[in-house]
Amino acid sequence: MSTIWDNLSKIRSASPLVHNITNYVVMNTSANALLAVGASPVMAHALEEVETMVGYAGALVLNIGTLSPAWVEAMLRAGKAAKARSVPIVLDPVGAGATPLRTDTALKLLEEVSPSVVRGNASEIRALGGSLASTKGVDSTDSVESAIEAAKALVERYSLVVSISGPTDVIVSKTQIARVHNGSPLMTRVTGMGCTASALTGAYLAVEASHFEAAAQAMVVTGIAGELAASQSAGPGTFQVQFLDALYALNQAQIESLGRWEITSGT
Amino acid sequence: MSTIWDNLSKIRSASPLVHNITNYVVMNTSANALLAVGASPVMAHALEEVETMVGYAGALVLNIGTLSPAWVEAMLRAGKAAKARSVPIVLDPVGAGATPLRTDTALKLLEEVSPSVVRGNASEIRALGGSLASTKGVDSTDSVESAIEAAKALVERYSLVVSISGPTDVIVSKTQIARVHNGSPLMTRVTGMGCTASALTGAYLAVEASHFEAAAQAMVVTGIAGELAASQSAGPGTFQVQFLDALYALNQAQIESLGRWEITSGT
Amino acid sequence: MSTIWDNLSKIRSASPLVHNITNYVVMNTSANALLAVGASPVMAHALEEVETMVGYAGALVLNIGTLSPAWVEAMLRAGKAAKARSVPIVLDPVGAGATPLRTDTALKLLEEVSPSVVRGNASEIRALGGSLASTKGVDSTDSVESAIEAAKALVERYSLVVSISGPTDVIVSKTQIARVHNGSPLMTRVTGMGCTASALTGAYLAVEASHFEAAAQAMVVTGIAGELAASQSAGPGTFQVQFLDALYALNQAQIESLGRWEITSGT
Repeated sequence: MSTIWDNLSKIRSASPLVHNITNYVVMNTSANALLAVGASPVMAHALEEVETMVGYAGALVLNIGTLSPAWVEAMLRAGKAAKARSVPIVLDPVGAGATPLRTDTALKLLEEVSPSVVRGNASEIRALGGSLASTKGVDSTDSVESAIEAAKALVERYSLVVSISGPTDVIVSKTQIARVHNGSPLMTRVTGMGCTASALTGAYLAVEASHFEAAAQAMVVTGIAGELAASQSAGPGTFQVQFLDALYALNQAQIESLGRWEITSGT
Repeated sequence: MSTIWDNLSKIRSASPLVHNITNYVVMNTSANALLAVGASPVMAHALEEVETMVGYAGALVLNIGTLSPAWVEAMLRAGKAAKARSVPIVLDPVGAGATPLRTDTALKLLEEVSPSVVRGNASEIRALGGSLASTKGVDSTDSVESAIEAAKALVERYSLVVSISGPTDVIVSKTQIARVHNGSPLMTRVTGMGCTASALTGAYLAVEASHFEAAAQAMVVTGIAGELAASQSAGPGTFQVQFLDALYALNQAQIESLGRWEITSGT
Repeated sequence: MSTIWDNLSKIRSASPLVHNITNYVVMNTSANALLAVGASPVMAHALEEVETMVGYAGALVLNIGTLSPAWVEAMLRAGKAAKARSVPIVLDPVGAGATPLRTDTALKLLEEVSPSVVRGNASEIRALGGSLASTKGVDSTDSVESAIEAAKALVERYSLVVSISGPTDVIVSKTQIARVHNGSPLMTRVTGMGCTASALTGAYLAVEASHFEAAAQAMVVTGIAGELAASQSAGPGTFQVQFLDALYALNQAQIESLGRWEITSGT
């Protein structure tokens, strides 16, 4: 296990390939975030090539934001190839709970490709893990804390790490919980910031063996870059620009002085 | 009927979901414009989920900018679900007139899903309504005024509002015509500004019962944000950034001092 | 043959339509680069309309960055229509060499649609032309110079121009080689800058009869805009914004003072 800074340095020097099968809305911004942090993004979804492409990858990111059946098939095929090669997988279950297509696809990917990390918001995590957890009725809140029981159920069932984004991000493994306090409200006014966090989680998984650490560190980096960007932004337009600049220039002193997270026992 | 500012405040407080089935080029920028103005965008096009998603929506935006047959089917299905639930629909007939696929698809959507507003440029509106109007030969100009007869024919035939964008935007209902003088030439040097106007029309339709007012108010807001952005931009790169910031920060004083539009009788 | 500046002026006054069948990641940025330089972009990939759309185009850009079989079919159909009408074609073989799907598709397009210019990086050009050239084993370097033999083989076989992008861009025709020294390392940290160069090559082909000059001039313009943008950028976020502003405002004095390229005999 390395520090956030050491792993960022590794990403910058090794430039691991992160293979994304993601939604149309964020392809450009996810690719740019990965380039800004020092990784090498590739977007490829054709059935004819996803398995080959996974062979070069340090991590695979599956994001169901603009789903259609052909893309589900590509995600399954790429995911199985990644699993066979022990390439870590991030699943971003965008919109799980909103439609059966999304919920069912996310659950199918959980069953069949064994993601290392699921990164979603509270309502997505509850949609996936809620029926497994001993919830009492429908939880009407969207708070991150309310999704922790669902996250624990997913961790238990699928042996993975769950990363819940929100005002405080909560990362849950079998034995530990990390809470990350970095970030800015402006991040909710830019499309695809969650998808960016998933992409950066992929970059960290490519260099860090502990999936829990990788997931938590990626959220700290995303949050710090978001804070730095927000401090120089009049709105969501400048924020996007400053966010990429902040990721690109992020240094050890910033990480050490701005990072605000703690780890507790998860039981 | 509420004022532009009151409706903007409603969008910001209620954050209505605007469901977009739109083209690949502008998915990101339309989503960001909707977030900047305070709405909640969702992009979803799978046949398996469009009807469910429409059920959450305050408005549906159908944009044919990068068409293919599967997407046409999704637009028809989503549009019919919206119609059945009285969810207002904006149709952006991008490129109508340029190819039969686009013209025919736009006409089919007009016939089958009953849009509340069609928002296009002069040549698109002429392509759709020109044969209905008593035009004398092919009109060789692209001016907005030249498209008003075609717009009136569409209004008559389909009982909707037509919003024609150009140096002066013209919004046509059965009884009224609005002319909006806001905007900047720099807007023509950024891809998807028309699509953004359509998306913002969707946000206004979600909170304003008068389709004519919603269509006109959205053009005023788009135009004012464009003027504010252009005043701080050296080119189309900075313009895009400043446009989102301007939308995000738009206040009542700006709307009241900068809005330039008038309504006349449409007959 | 006209100068870079004269051709830029022609693009700005004639605003030629550049028809792109390109990847999802860069559709927005390519369209914006074309608008910034003064051209008119259109993105259209439906089998039902690509031939009609090519009929309006001054150039066709085929980019295989996010390939799937339906898109290959559209590229072939559009390419054949362009060939029949003598509309110049740029092929950007993104990722050729990485997967058989990409290599095979690029070779098929070379065979069947007769591109005027192939614009790729060194490894892509070696993947396409390497087996034609008398290479000794696998070349392990990615340097542009190492791809020149492969480029010459492609030029010979397919009667086209090859434009290899890198720290120094090398443009190869049957009788000449141009080396362009403009550009900035920051361009490698932004997704789709190569695709942008291909799109701008399309704009130049639409106004310049010499395919070799068009290809070289487009790389000079791209490189100068990149240098101007980098000089005002703290990172890849601001770079993207400044790049579009620089393209938009590029003037004769900048081109004449900053352009660094030379042409030598290609034999």
